[in-house]
Amino acid sequence: MRVLVVYDVSDDSRRLRLSRELERMGLSRVQRSAFVGPGGLAVAKEAARAAAQLVDDSTDVVHVVLLSEVEWANALVVGRPLAAPRVAEVTLLG
Amino acid sequence: MRVLVVYDVSDDSRRLRLSRELERMGLSRVQRSAFVGPGGLAVAKEAARAAAQLVDDSTDVVHVVLLSEVEWANALVVGRPLAAPRVAEVTLLG
Repeated sequence: MRVLVVYDVSDDSRRLRLSRELERMGLSRVQRSAFVGPGGLAVAKEAARAAAQLVDDSTDVVHVVLLSEVEWANALVVGRPLAAPRVAEVTLLG
Repeated sequence: MRVLVVYDVSDDSRRLRLSRELERMGLSRVQRSAFVGPGGLAVAKEAARAAAQLVDDSTDVVHVVLLSEVEWANALVVGRPLAAPRVAEVTLLG
């Protein structure tokens, strides 16, 4: 399974602490505000719990999605992901 | 199925045009840079094609992920999603 974490966190220090926590959990940054990595429900809950302790509920939002290896491998990617592309980088013909 | 689109687009007007295109396709904004909505591979490819025509490959990145209804319904959400919560809003006990 893969855990995908996507977030809108306005405060710089909260955002930095969340990204560090996600890295500590073994997730890789694929966009400025998106991390993905191996894991099941336990990792997803751990990520959500970390987010709940770090972000401001009134302004911020974090989505933690559990998806299969195949679904992440089949993701269509346009442009340049930050982490080494774990997915087949799709070059879309015009 | 659900199509989840997550993007880092630095230029304001490109970002606005991409978000309008995703809305036109029936996707809803759940975070500043994340849209989700009903659709299968055709909608996913349409979103990726629109992104490929709008974004700057050298600076921007867009991920288009196809996932099941259940996977999106089971997403853990912390904070306040922009669109009406299509998922059961999870209040994580401390």
